[in-house]
Amino acid sequence: MTAAHVELDAPPPLPATGLRITPMGGLGAIGRNMTLFEFGGRLLVVDCGVLFPDVDQPGVDLILPDFESILDRLDAVDAIVLTHGHEDHIGAVPYLLAHKPDIPLVGSQFTLALVEAKLAERRITPYSLTVREGQTERLGPFECEFFAVNHSIPDALAVAIKTPAGTVLHTGDFKMDQLPLDGRLTDLAGFARLGAEGVDLLLSDSTNAEIPGFVTPEREIGPVLDRIFAGATGRVIVASFASHVHRVQQVFDAARAHGRHVALIGRSMVRNMGIARDLGLLRIPGGLVVGMDEALNLPPERIVLMSTGSQGEPMSALGRMANGDHRHVTIAPGDTVVLASSLVPGNESAVYRVINRLSRAGAVVVHKDVAKVHVSGHSPAGELRYLLNVVKPRNFMPVHGEWRHLRAHAELGVESGVPREQVVLCEDGDVVDLVDGVARLVGHIRSRYVYVDGLAVGDVSESLLTERRILGDGGFIAATVVIDSVTGKVVGGPAISAKGFSEDPAAFDAVLPVITEALLRAAEEGVTDPHQLQQLVRRTVGRWVNEKYRRRPMIVPNVVEV
Amino acid sequence: MTAAHVELDAPPPLPATGLRITPMGGLGAIGRNMTLFEFGGRLLVVDCGVLFPDVDQPGVDLILPDFESILDRLDAVDAIVLTHGHEDHIGAVPYLLAHKPDIPLVGSQFTLALVEAKLAERRITPYSLTVREGQTERLGPFECEFFAVNHSIPDALAVAIKTPAGTVLHTGDFKMDQLPLDGRLTDLAGFARLGAEGVDLLLSDSTNAEIPGFVTPEREIGPVLDRIFAGATGRVIVASFASHVHRVQQVFDAARAHGRHVALIGRSMVRNMGIARDLGLLRIPGGLVVGMDEALNLPPERIVLMSTGSQGEPMSALGRMANGDHRHVTIAPGDTVVLASSLVPGNESAVYRVINRLSRAGAVVVHKDVAKVHVSGHSPAGELRYLLNVVKPRNFMPVHGEWRHLRAHAELGVESGVPREQVVLCEDGDVVDLVDGVARLVGHIRSRYVYVDGLAVGDVSESLLTERRILGDGGFIAATVVIDSVTGKVVGGPAISAKGFSEDPAAFDAVLPVITEALLRAAEEGVTDPHQLQQLVRRTVGRWVNEKYRRRPMIVPNVVEV
Repeated sequence: MTAAHVELDAPPPLPATGLRITPMGGLGAIGRNMTLFEFGGRLLVVDCGVLFPDVDQPGVDLILPDFESILDRLDAVDAIVLTHGHEDHIGAVPYLLAHKPDIPLVGSQFTLALVEAKLAERRITPYSLTVREGQTERLGPFECEFFAVNHSIPDALAVAIKTPAGTVLHTGDFKMDQLPLDGRLTDLAGFARLGAEGVDLLLSDSTNAEIPGFVTPEREIGPVLDRIFAGATGRVIVASFASHVHRVQQVFDAARAHGRHVALIGRSMVRNMGIARDLGLLRIPGGLVVGMDEALNLPPERIVLMSTGSQGEPMSALGRMANGDHRHVTIAPGDTVVLASSLVPGNESAVYRVINRLSRAGAVVVHKDVAKVHVSGHSPAGELRYLLNVVKPRNFMPVHGEWRHLRAHAELGVESGVPREQVVLCEDGDVVDLVDGVARLVGHIRSRYVYVDGLAVGDVSESLLTERRILGDGGFIAATVVIDSVTGKVVGGPAISAKGFSEDPAAFDAVLPVITEALLRAAEEGVTDPHQLQQLVRRTVGRWVNEKYRRRPMIVPNVVEV
Repeated sequence: MTAAHVELDAPPPLPATGLRITPMGGLGAIGRNMTLFEFGGRLLVVDCGVLFPDVDQPGVDLILPDFESILDRLDAVDAIVLTHGHEDHIGAVPYLLAHKPDIPLVGSQFTLALVEAKLAERRITPYSLTVREGQTERLGPFECEFFAVNHSIPDALAVAIKTPAGTVLHTGDFKMDQLPLDGRLTDLAGFARLGAEGVDLLLSDSTNAEIPGFVTPEREIGPVLDRIFAGATGRVIVASFASHVHRVQQVFDAARAHGRHVALIGRSMVRNMGIARDLGLLRIPGGLVVGMDEALNLPPERIVLMSTGSQGEPMSALGRMANGDHRHVTIAPGDTVVLASSLVPGNESAVYRVINRLSRAGAVVVHKDVAKVHVSGHSPAGELRYLLNVVKPRNFMPVHGEWRHLRAHAELGVESGVPREQVVLCEDGDVVDLVDGVARLVGHIRSRYVYVDGLAVGDVSESLLTERRILGDGGFIAATVVIDSVTGKVVGGPAISAKGFSEDPAAFDAVLPVITEALLRAAEEGVTDPHQLQQLVRRTVGRWVNEKYRRRPMIVPNVVEV
């Protein structure tokens, strides 16, 4: 483990006996998980997810992994293995398949059903190979064995990848709930057997590595919901992630116990629960679920609305209810709203805004700060130690986490006996070679954030985001001057047009003569070059606004030739 | 208590026997605390603080209470009582005194010292009246009795305000640490005596009303710091609020126990700890504190840097260290950084960014998620019930909180025996009259957020912020057309200038002919009005960008006449 992270050059060629592992996403930020495995000229991709933008990435819809380094080698990709169906693991699949739609997708039944539903919207029918725990599949030179793991979505898998270079275990996201609702435990026994056979490299989920202890079982949320439902006199509205089938199951169970019907709200909630029901992952008692129309005709004390919007998304069903502009539901005193979900970092302001608006409208709002209505889907430190201790990896590479998580997980690895120099602490784009049983950081490839904004993929750059941040913080002042294209003389303007700066119509009266004077002086000095005149206007306006306002709006000089 | 919040009109005149209470800030958002009391034509202000902007208020430095409703009555203000020295209680004092510098300030010694230091920067020497717990002062018709309260800053006070209309108790911010470091307990006995005399209205701190239970004593942080210091092999860098004297004291004590010297970093940290030392609130063993120059010459294992920047502020000392651009301190493996502070909602992204950057540079970072290095300064529900039960107020008005906190606190009031109709649940600008022992919401006055941006106070409006958000999300496309001022004919352009939209220099090649064609058609139809031409350009560009990109940048049409 290098103590401080170092910047590396391009990697050397991969030795013929070596396995190359390149995290293309998920290390350094939580999201856009994607790991590339290379052996003997063939490639295997594990997960292909999106990252959701934070406030520093304004106007961005999604962030993708940087596919550039594999675009000319897509023929060498034997498969994309998907560990589970969360967006940060499958969300970028349509963007990769847009380049080559026939790369096989390998995953569990529920995972593939979710990704196929996404692909159907883009009219892509993928080549899918359904696998389940206990199964082994050879994908090119990669022999993949799948293990059950427990997570906040059903049917999640870990994958062991065996090549002549050694065995790698990639956990995907997991926790070790010892009383899972569906009885499907993380396969610690399988991991122990694999460990006994020898694991050369462990890649393990670091999301909760800083948190001490163990997860609370998912099923402890049931009684909490039960108490809330028992105390509710009017409507109950529950918001949760649209893929958290077990959480929704507990809401269904509580609804039934209290004689309420459930209406599902939100496109992804309706779609995913349909898939879960069809696959037998969700038990829906007959007559429990009703349509929105029917729900609106029931008395409030017989209704549960199961909704999306738990992260404060303003356009979601719950977001619209909070803003008072949902088509069907107007929040009123007597309503009880339950946010049975995590609070994803970065969403705090949005979520608390929704809670406050619901409170102001008279609803009682129950969220994870005030009641145990959520448990995490990721193993904290106590459980991660169990995994490390049964797998006994020769080399260890923490994945899925920000630096704080990766470093905390690295220390857990060292504590559990992995030699410090065999802990590979790296970030997106770093290249790790497993050769002769030793994993080593050998180089770095470019791994930019690829931004999706509207229909465009990748044409929003970091410097464009910097422009947006400047515009967003201070607005702009544009100053237009018209010059004669032959003589270079000013024949019109200056005219000021500003947005986000001041609403005083007279705000710029004082700067117009200053620009005019600067242009006159320039004319006297014989300056006629439009670019030089632009710079002059920029400097003049910038100095004025700094002195008068102590602000830094963007200054946009326009010199138009006629 | 009204179940859902209702919008009210201007209040009726105040009856001669009534006391009017107007929260001018602090209800509906945490910050800019200010409460106005009016009796017999005279006014008393309690606190006058700032609110820090969130991501929805881009480019804003500070948010002030709206003084408009009192600006023409400043002669009637008998005093500004300051409960304690946090920015959200004193930060707007300079802005109010800018209108009338001789309004007396009343507060404890430490509170006044902090506000006087702020005012000195603006060359204002206020009229100050120092009070302490147990003391009673008549301020115009308002007889004010002061009570000790325990908070995350020394020398905080609650104030009881007695007029012929009744007695009001305003707690300010408080908690009830039963083992306070300075032995200064929240005066529950005093509150009980006041309750026995009769409290007509209680205004009490709602910040933690949603949180069950009781605070952990501040002194339990000492042993945690001690363990961290014992395990640290290199430098220790601690970040905390610059006014949290007791937290800094514990850092000093841990430093001394482990043979380390302390250097203070950050202007406010140096200033406030100087004041605290001079007032005897901070014990500094001789030789413990050294200057930065001296610290740089000590071996790492003998240094503690006590810094500002615990909220992720990029320009703070810790923020600069994380970014690798601090003048003196470069983070390296072996460094231990402790964030001994809360995480103020809205700052999560910034704080975690700092933690990740410090981790990436090799530091071990300890923060409140991973160790007990912070306790809150506000009473949670368990303690709030104690207060309600000893004061037994006739009327209760939760203050200092967002809606979720106010509503939770209101329920605590009802549970402890305040009749539901005597609980006044209101927000900034609502007007409450206490008449004949009954508090009632009687109206509403305008209470806008007043934004400070650079040197300007109040010229940034909500619609300007909307413009900034649009610019920040999508950038802008400006299209300039030059027309002849006499004929209205187009003589130059269209020229496109865009920021934050695309970096492709050819991005707008396709739209230029579309604009030209639209202008030609308009000319054929005889349209020469510049405003109509502007609308035409806006529509043309807007339609094109939506179809081609599915984005909504700001479209800025400029028609310049020559």
